[in-house]
Amino acid sequence: MSTPTFDAPFRETLNDLLAWRRDVRHFKTDPVDRDIVLDCLKTVSIGPSVGNSQPWRFVLVDDQNRLQKLTELFEATNAEALSDFAGDSAKLYATLKLAGLKEAPIQLSVFADIHTNVGRGLGSRTMPETKAYSVVGAIHTLWILLRAHGIGMGWVSILPPDAMAELMEVDPTYKFIGHLCIGYPQEQTLTPELVKAGWQDRLPFDEFIIER
Amino acid sequence: MSTPTFDAPFRETLNDLLAWRRDVRHFKTDPVDRDIVLDCLKTVSIGPSVGNSQPWRFVLVDDQNRLQKLTELFEATNAEALSDFAGDSAKLYATLKLAGLKEAPIQLSVFADIHTNVGRGLGSRTMPETKAYSVVGAIHTLWILLRAHGIGMGWVSILPPDAMAELMEVDPTYKFIGHLCIGYPQEQTLTPELVKAGWQDRLPFDEFIIER
Repeated sequence: MSTPTFDAPFRETLNDLLAWRRDVRHFKTDPVDRDIVLDCLKTVSIGPSVGNSQPWRFVLVDDQNRLQKLTELFEATNAEALSDFAGDSAKLYATLKLAGLKEAPIQLSVFADIHTNVGRGLGSRTMPETKAYSVVGAIHTLWILLRAHGIGMGWVSILPPDAMAELMEVDPTYKFIGHLCIGYPQEQTLTPELVKAGWQDRLPFDEFIIER
Repeated sequence: MSTPTFDAPFRETLNDLLAWRRDVRHFKTDPVDRDIVLDCLKTVSIGPSVGNSQPWRFVLVDDQNRLQKLTELFEATNAEALSDFAGDSAKLYATLKLAGLKEAPIQLSVFADIHTNVGRGLGSRTMPETKAYSVVGAIHTLWILLRAHGIGMGWVSILPPDAMAELMEVDPTYKFIGHLCIGYPQEQTLTPELVKAGWQDRLPFDEFIIER
């Protein structure tokens, strides 16, 4: 296979894709073709990982009983999180929709096999967290690929990580990375939901750059 | 701006991009236009982050003295890592090229401002590591954008994280995420360097999928 070149029009569309790739919380209940998601995960799984350890483990959750328990875990954790806020922050927090657990037709819990011997530990000696980081990279690639199909994804982190391996009945040494709600978004937008809701604006770009 | 649609030819090219996006360790010394990297970082910085906390801090490292110290840190850490291996693994490890610190014309150290109040802590109560994860997502987006310009990136994790904030003279509470070597690759390839070197093959896709 000859090396592909990526031209300016492609890069422009890629920039559009990244601009319109938002964290989605409001989903339609329309079904999503599971094969599209599996195809995307196949592409994801050839991505780079520390020491080529490929520590990503994707749990496709269909069992309704398990999904019900997941929703209960989320609601309990979210109620605790609400109690961290007071005054206007608490009022605003209570109005935010932070997960699409009930509507999104595809639910994916993602774990890292942080103790895998695959890759022989290369690259993770001083930074064992790089195994989790490799899985985060995989999730971000999935986000982009799904969006190119018009499919939205929302990353739910308001969950108790220790309970997740048990709920999903995976190897108890797996580290929970995030739960992903996947479905068609109710709205396509350039603006993050938390900006629109008045929770947190975007910062100016120069706050991110340091010259040394 | 009307919602863009992403068609099948675009998705095919995107798949090619992801297949040819490798972790690069062998760089040409040809200069890379710094404005391209900054433009990519601008696109990166509108990506999603937990609670919209935007915790990514990108350190562009130009100071030769600092780069020399970075190389020494890497070499000392890598020598320690080599001592973890024995026999054939040690022989093979010693032959691997694990960083492009001397050749890559652009060097970027990336940190997470994990104590930022931006985003008011939303989403990171039970999983404080999600701030670091947001920065990892930004790095992965950068990887893809640079590759669309034909530019390669290599993520160096064989570094002592505690020493990095000091070496880069950033806020000591920042968490080091990774050091990125950026430049034109000596070779364009579909095969990860660690596969080619015989260190670690790819696993079959079905090892990553769990049905629940």
